[in-house]
Amino acid sequence: MIRALAFDVFGTVVDWRGSLIREGQLLEKKRGVRADWAAFADAWRAGYHPAMDRVRKGELPWTHIDTLHRMILDAILPKFALEGLNDAERDELNRAWHRLSPWPDSVPGLNRLKGRYVVATLSNGNVSLLVDMAKNAGLPWDCILSSELFGHYKPDAEVYRGAAQLLNLAPGEVMMVAAHPPDLKAAQKCGLKTAYVPRPLEYGPQSKPAPNDGTFDIVAESFLDLAQQLGC
Amino acid sequence: MIRALAFDVFGTVVDWRGSLIREGQLLEKKRGVRADWAAFADAWRAGYHPAMDRVRKGELPWTHIDTLHRMILDAILPKFALEGLNDAERDELNRAWHRLSPWPDSVPGLNRLKGRYVVATLSNGNVSLLVDMAKNAGLPWDCILSSELFGHYKPDAEVYRGAAQLLNLAPGEVMMVAAHPPDLKAAQKCGLKTAYVPRPLEYGPQSKPAPNDGTFDIVAESFLDLAQQLGC
Repeated sequence: MIRALAFDVFGTVVDWRGSLIREGQLLEKKRGVRADWAAFADAWRAGYHPAMDRVRKGELPWTHIDTLHRMILDAILPKFALEGLNDAERDELNRAWHRLSPWPDSVPGLNRLKGRYVVATLSNGNVSLLVDMAKNAGLPWDCILSSELFGHYKPDAEVYRGAAQLLNLAPGEVMMVAAHPPDLKAAQKCGLKTAYVPRPLEYGPQSKPAPNDGTFDIVAESFLDLAQQLGC
Repeated sequence: MIRALAFDVFGTVVDWRGSLIREGQLLEKKRGVRADWAAFADAWRAGYHPAMDRVRKGELPWTHIDTLHRMILDAILPKFALEGLNDAERDELNRAWHRLSPWPDSVPGLNRLKGRYVVATLSNGNVSLLVDMAKNAGLPWDCILSSELFGHYKPDAEVYRGAAQLLNLAPGEVMMVAAHPPDLKAAQKCGLKTAYVPRPLEYGPQSKPAPNDGTFDIVAESFLDLAQQLGC
């Protein structure tokens, strides 16, 4: 009996790559700087897991995603000949992660699911980032849950167990929804139910989705499909 | 420059007393039990601060409000000749706190404020209680912040400072909104701005609101008045 759905956000709910490319193109129009914005978006995102792993291994104290994103940004700018951006411009670009656009089915799907289930984020993004994103994109969350609340990044078990505990539910009453099998596997190990929603364009039109190894409770092509399969 | 509004909930956003009286009247219709439901509601609420104080003083380990409410309920039932209620009935009655009704201006006021500010709870209620209440009453929170996230009950400073930190704001960018001067005074000591919204019926038609000693940034008669004063 599922009572709540916990959603991964970057890639699952919002299209970080397309949004960052658009932010780069806007910057190009505004400031006249040029770069391969798709490569830039990929490079920025590629720094994400290694940065969180430094926190998970204790090489860095707890550091939230806004700060990690800024560290990665500062490191990659010279590779794209963008080191001329000043501090305010870097801050503004870093806040692009607060205004990522949803996939087309995300808002209508969440609105349907919300009628029957608690819909919550369960993201490595920090709380304020997720709040800004929700206001900007019209994401109708019942509750913002973030790794920041637990002092651990996914896929650490503390995050999945902590979410069930804050929702006052047994792990089996919570379904993790993600486009990323490793996130779902980690949730499964903690007793959560799982829904795999592949996002074939997450890494661009040439990327391939991870294979579905068949162990997830639901596989859906969109949040609307997920709503239908869950009887909403 | 205010960026976020943090709302006390019990009494400020929702009418706990009127809602509990109604729950008692419904129970009377359903089960044939009788009691002075206003006195019952007042007795239940009167146990609230002493119970939290036991947690704040370390006499009890961290215990969330659902559990404290149930402890108080079990203690007062005999005084109202209601000790015949079984465990399931007590659980159901305890969940009345999850379905408290908003004051008439709460939902329209929050909707107006939400267009310009982050609107968050900052309540001693646990996260799941606040989520259930919001879904039930249509409260459009951007973010559910609760004492449960900090392991401290208001008026401990950790709660007010923790809220500003999670919102990634300076304390002075957050305005605490409450019907209770002691909550506002504690927020003020942590550097938050304050809005006092008296709820003259909170303790029933005979009760008197606490005097406004004039130290709050805003005094408003309703959330609609607050929205107007804040330019929404």
